[in-house]
Amino acid sequence: MALTPRSQDYSQWYLDVAKAADLFEYSPTPGCITFLPKSVAIWDRIRSTMQMKLELLGVQNLYLPMLIPMSFFEREKEHVEGFAPELAVVTVGGGKVLEDPLAIRPTSELLFCDFFKNRLQSYRDLPLLYNQWVSVLRWEKRTRPFLRTAEFHWQEGHTLHETREDAQNFALSIHYNVYIETIREFMAIDGIAGKKSSSEKFAGADTTYTFEPMMSNGWALQICTSHLLGQGFMEGFGVNFQNRDGGISHPYYTSWGLSTRSIGGIISSHSDDKGLIIPPRISEYMAMILPVYGKDNKEVVNAYARSLAEEMVGGTTEVPVQGEYFRAIIGPRGKVLLDLRDARLGEKINDFELSGYPVRIECGERDLQSGKCVVASRISGEKVVIERSELTATVDHMHTQGQGMLFEASSKRLRENTVACETLEDVGRAIEDGKFALYEWDGDPQMEIDIKERFKATTRCIPFEGQFTDDLLKLKNPENVRVVIARSF
Amino acid sequence: MALTPRSQDYSQWYLDVAKAADLFEYSPTPGCITFLPKSVAIWDRIRSTMQMKLELLGVQNLYLPMLIPMSFFEREKEHVEGFAPELAVVTVGGGKVLEDPLAIRPTSELLFCDFFKNRLQSYRDLPLLYNQWVSVLRWEKRTRPFLRTAEFHWQEGHTLHETREDAQNFALSIHYNVYIETIREFMAIDGIAGKKSSSEKFAGADTTYTFEPMMSNGWALQICTSHLLGQGFMEGFGVNFQNRDGGISHPYYTSWGLSTRSIGGIISSHSDDKGLIIPPRISEYMAMILPVYGKDNKEVVNAYARSLAEEMVGGTTEVPVQGEYFRAIIGPRGKVLLDLRDARLGEKINDFELSGYPVRIECGERDLQSGKCVVASRISGEKVVIERSELTATVDHMHTQGQGMLFEASSKRLRENTVACETLEDVGRAIEDGKFALYEWDGDPQMEIDIKERFKATTRCIPFEGQFTDDLLKLKNPENVRVVIARSF
Repeated sequence: MALTPRSQDYSQWYLDVAKAADLFEYSPTPGCITFLPKSVAIWDRIRSTMQMKLELLGVQNLYLPMLIPMSFFEREKEHVEGFAPELAVVTVGGGKVLEDPLAIRPTSELLFCDFFKNRLQSYRDLPLLYNQWVSVLRWEKRTRPFLRTAEFHWQEGHTLHETREDAQNFALSIHYNVYIETIREFMAIDGIAGKKSSSEKFAGADTTYTFEPMMSNGWALQICTSHLLGQGFMEGFGVNFQNRDGGISHPYYTSWGLSTRSIGGIISSHSDDKGLIIPPRISEYMAMILPVYGKDNKEVVNAYARSLAEEMVGGTTEVPVQGEYFRAIIGPRGKVLLDLRDARLGEKINDFELSGYPVRIECGERDLQSGKCVVASRISGEKVVIERSELTATVDHMHTQGQGMLFEASSKRLRENTVACETLEDVGRAIEDGKFALYEWDGDPQMEIDIKERFKATTRCIPFEGQFTDDLLKLKNPENVRVVIARSF
Repeated sequence: MALTPRSQDYSQWYLDVAKAADLFEYSPTPGCITFLPKSVAIWDRIRSTMQMKLELLGVQNLYLPMLIPMSFFEREKEHVEGFAPELAVVTVGGGKVLEDPLAIRPTSELLFCDFFKNRLQSYRDLPLLYNQWVSVLRWEKRTRPFLRTAEFHWQEGHTLHETREDAQNFALSIHYNVYIETIREFMAIDGIAGKKSSSEKFAGADTTYTFEPMMSNGWALQICTSHLLGQGFMEGFGVNFQNRDGGISHPYYTSWGLSTRSIGGIISSHSDDKGLIIPPRISEYMAMILPVYGKDNKEVVNAYARSLAEEMVGGTTEVPVQGEYFRAIIGPRGKVLLDLRDARLGEKINDFELSGYPVRIECGERDLQSGKCVVASRISGEKVVIERSELTATVDHMHTQGQGMLFEASSKRLRENTVACETLEDVGRAIEDGKFALYEWDGDPQMEIDIKERFKATTRCIPFEGQFTDDLLKLKNPENVRVVIARSF
């Protein structure tokens, strides 16, 4: 399958890369995709990384129902206005028309608020720190696999705190120590951290923190947000507790989510015209081994390929992967994929490049005679002939180096393409050029309406300090703020 | 909280145990519960155990959408008759009435069939082995936490095979090597393996394999089933492949699921009048430590308690658990829970017994002076004073012994309370006595209607060979079969 070049048609390139790498399949359910094993494997790695971080913060997993009584949506005015147009509504259950229809969760604040009522008596019960790994549904007309689909998978955290300061600190600790760390160190994607403007924040939130990476076309992609919801929801649901003075207070509420949009971010950030590139730290397979057969030597070459794989993973378990030709070798150090097809090396390399796995190993009769093999990095393109005793160290090195190179490239792109703009005309030109525009703003929401109409762009965030050199952030009027303006998925 | 004694009111006892152990909360969503962190932790352990087994069989995880077009239900006649009465139907999406309404999946055969069409060309693509960890929804009027709720969590596996024999072997390998092994060795529950009668099998299946454990009231609980679906669904959806002879064939289809009903099975099988008992191998915490305070010694006693915990888990990470008083100590060997409340030892022991964790450790000033502590098993009731150097070995021993004792008790109950019955009157008496009845049956479905009306009982399975002594299975007429009849949740 030939991929559309990225420079020719970005959207089509993105779809071609994701399709050729077998990440998704279109679905007959409107607005939805099937997440194929490869994208689920990436999500599982993101999930286990984050799960460990959440556990160390004392966050506990639970499962609330997927359906929310529609009557609940009336209790928080901004929230219902934000989500009502996107709801999928169950009106028939068990063959009968329901008196109180049920919405499939677009997010679960309303059910959590009801749930919190029963979990909270005294300040001694605080903080309450909960999370769930589920899918949510927001009705979408224009969809794009992973980046925008009606149903997507995410984790949603919901916590209650005694004071606003506690709540804010916790939301920021999720934002920095869980989200930004996972995105930068595992997904190898850099971005700008900041808070959303009033019109862009979550429906019902006081403050929304966001991290906005730049994709390879210069658009922003919102992967995660953390919300300081304050006391509004608590009032709507009558959630309160006995405070330290014996009085009754509302707790402060935070919620935060990171979704499978991040898989779209990985595809869009790192891939090239040859296909997908998966950052080594979240790749299911450490490497693919491509045995090259001569005349009548398939068995010995395969045995050699297997022995290389077993050495790398430290185990000998062999498992078939989707049919007859691919095998996974599994051990305590990881998994390696064997391509046992009777194909030319060029074809195998081509499919390896589409697959996105970080390292390939080629071996044929000559290699097995000399005890060598060829190792090549999907990321740096480096290709070396090594003794088999050097295999593990070489692959480890290519992983570390590749992971670093991907992050550096993402970071460099962001730095080089974020520019200060004096006027809205400058902003428009920057956006046409695929850049993030830093614009001095007095906070008037009319500007946001203008840039949407004129440039199809939105304010992405008001950046936190320390991310840019002073000249990029210098304000003429200290009452104003710098805001990032960009197109986004 | 005082629990209703099991002998007094089984249903209320079950609810009291689950509630006191903080396993669930009632929900405003009809028929649904909130799965609290403790039940999710049990489910996560079951999940990771099964996940490892599935991976070694070459099964890959994916995610299909949660919504199924209603028009799909027309394509398999038996299937629609089986599930139509239980559907929750989305008729409104994004504010508009849908032309083709969407059902929340009660199970995903229909979407998998549509999906398979695009994944299969040749016999070389077979087998296709997929699984998803999701929740499903089946509208229920009478619910019972975990045992029967509208929404529940499960895994559902869906596989295609070249021949009926391959499909049957795979379904049996899931049944024995994944399900029965997990249920017996991890959940510590014994049961009867067999196949369902025609009227009790899955809607659309040729054969349904089941494992039917006996709960502590003598009722059966169906935790998992594996279905040989044959070619019926394949015909309805036009799924076929090029066979080895160059012709076109339908593949053979299996599906199989194990659900969070198993948590209900664990509660019901093992718990006693003091509260929940969690089998050690699926317990989140290895042990609870209950420090006992004297006058002004809280800090030193807590430091000693912490050092015991750190020794057990091999690590020093401390994390708050739900509020101020409980702490988890986490390390590479596991997790220990500290109860730092300023309460009497009796109260702490009481709450430990409700909690269901397998081992408790008591320590006070005298213990810290002498370098000792008290260790007691929730399962055997054994209580010993030991040197702290013996701590890890003692806890390990109590785990192994406790896990064994739970399984032995479950197994013994099943053996002693499964009886051969000559007449339906005998069957009725056996069932009234809380037993499984083994009845010689000519296969006439009228018997199943009779026992439902007369005894509120159903045929649970036609047992596989080798599970009972010959005299229990001996048939007067070799054309007949032995069938297990019982009440069930």
